[in-house]
Amino acid sequence: MHKIDLLSKRISEMKNPTVAGLDTRLEHLPKEFVEKTLGGAAETLESASKAILEFNKRLVDALCGIVPAVKVQIAYYEMYGLAGMECFAETVLYAKKKGMLVITDAKRNDIGATAEAYSAAHIGETAVGNAFFRAFFSDFVTVTPYLGEDGINPFIKDAEKTGNGIFVLVKTSNPSGCQLQNLIADGKPVYRLMGELVSRLGESTIGESGYSLAGAVVGATYPSEGAELRKALPHTFFLVPGYGAQGATAADIAGCFDKNCGGAVVNASRSLLLAWKKREGVAFDEAARLEALKMRDDIAAGLSAAGKDFA
Amino acid sequence: MHKIDLLSKRISEMKNPTVAGLDTRLEHLPKEFVEKTLGGAAETLESASKAILEFNKRLVDALCGIVPAVKVQIAYYEMYGLAGMECFAETVLYAKKKGMLVITDAKRNDIGATAEAYSAAHIGETAVGNAFFRAFFSDFVTVTPYLGEDGINPFIKDAEKTGNGIFVLVKTSNPSGCQLQNLIADGKPVYRLMGELVSRLGESTIGESGYSLAGAVVGATYPSEGAELRKALPHTFFLVPGYGAQGATAADIAGCFDKNCGGAVVNASRSLLLAWKKREGVAFDEAARLEALKMRDDIAAGLSAAGKDFA
Repeated sequence: MHKIDLLSKRISEMKNPTVAGLDTRLEHLPKEFVEKTLGGAAETLESASKAILEFNKRLVDALCGIVPAVKVQIAYYEMYGLAGMECFAETVLYAKKKGMLVITDAKRNDIGATAEAYSAAHIGETAVGNAFFRAFFSDFVTVTPYLGEDGINPFIKDAEKTGNGIFVLVKTSNPSGCQLQNLIADGKPVYRLMGELVSRLGESTIGESGYSLAGAVVGATYPSEGAELRKALPHTFFLVPGYGAQGATAADIAGCFDKNCGGAVVNASRSLLLAWKKREGVAFDEAARLEALKMRDDIAAGLSAAGKDFA
Repeated sequence: MHKIDLLSKRISEMKNPTVAGLDTRLEHLPKEFVEKTLGGAAETLESASKAILEFNKRLVDALCGIVPAVKVQIAYYEMYGLAGMECFAETVLYAKKKGMLVITDAKRNDIGATAEAYSAAHIGETAVGNAFFRAFFSDFVTVTPYLGEDGINPFIKDAEKTGNGIFVLVKTSNPSGCQLQNLIADGKPVYRLMGELVSRLGESTIGESGYSLAGAVVGATYPSEGAELRKALPHTFFLVPGYGAQGATAADIAGCFDKNCGGAVVNASRSLLLAWKKREGVAFDEAARLEALKMRDDIAAGLSAAGKDFA
């Protein structure tokens, strides 16, 4: 099953090109919820992880009918140690059980043989003797390109085999991303060269949607670069962070989409996780649902204003 | 405690600037050892992880008197899922218990707030309510610079607070590392610009050894770049992969060291893990010990031939 085709289909059915970022930390949870879930306060890595998992499940329940995918930021689980990693694994499985696609935002990267191990961990399989196991169950994983194609090709190989996909960092949403990514080399900025590399490496994995299994991370906070990359990379699907809490608007991201509102999916994390803070008296999951609907409609309006409408 | 000072001290006491890479996979273990350890073959992620942990402990026991540090490549644990992560955590703790310094080779990277989480996970602490916990217990973690200083500074902050350190990818040992790292921008190769960035970010953390807590990964497979970077970055300690199985010799790495054999530590993984295959009838831990001694002496001879001797 070609997961970019599937993601494209879900986005089109739901008319919602967004992904809910589960960058969940204990500080994001209402205190009363933590106390009620644990019968007291969270005071260990284990109790924190337990509360976060229950919070995530409630969010997935609230969002699975209107948002096609979640992005799980593994750093916020790794920081809680082994208990956090178990919470990560359970969150991934729960979201999939509820029909959502799962992007593990891990920004993994290493040289060939080690990149194989990371790919096996998240989108491929691990061999033990003659048996094969999935370690974690993501549909997509994010990858960093500092080591060049040696570090990307093992993921592409697994993508070809499994239909799962990757998003490679090309142009990130943070201010200092420019330090390296906007250097000019061979007459082009580094982000453009990396985008072209990803496009070339993904060529063998283009599906019915017209997009390959090797996607790119393109930050919403740099609208003109997003539009430039959209034109230059017609077969590369974009994962677009930076909308909402990082300051980018619906108008800023319109350039990342093709004319049928395809080719991109926009992430929002904090605005959903913390929606309850802006809506007094509304439960956190209902608040996230209302915020997700608002985000969906805001983006559709921004795309429509840019002359892009769902087919 | 300034961990680069401590690493420098151990290297000098042991006259051994090497680190043992625990990139352990089930395929590296002698079959009979796996069968004996498990009472049968390894056929699940859990049993594989159990066998790998026992193997790692035996290697640590054999090496802790002659090698100052281990580098644990987390990808090879992540691929075995939660059981693998537990094996990773236990391996780190065991090596520390035996007096070795631990470098977690994780190549983590993300934007500011998320880089904080990765740093907390590996070299800092995680806050839960009013309490603070260590998630994993590394002395050092490797970091990738694609996102610029936003993604590095959170680690530096933790380094200042804890004395633990980082190694940032500057010039990697793999062939395609050149695709990005050797692009020329502003008249310099990208690896040089990244090296200068790391040097600047680490300035506040220079210890008695003269080296900062922000080290750099500099591949042994590019000797002239290693020598160039050594001159350009006098306060940056180098972690040098690529010796042995990846083809670099003792002469190739001499340029990474200062004149007192300081400023660098060389990693070898496969040559130690698989030493038993070259020594019939010798147990795998004893074979690794013999190989580690050979490596130590080979490197000392290479450094001496280049006019560099231990003080």
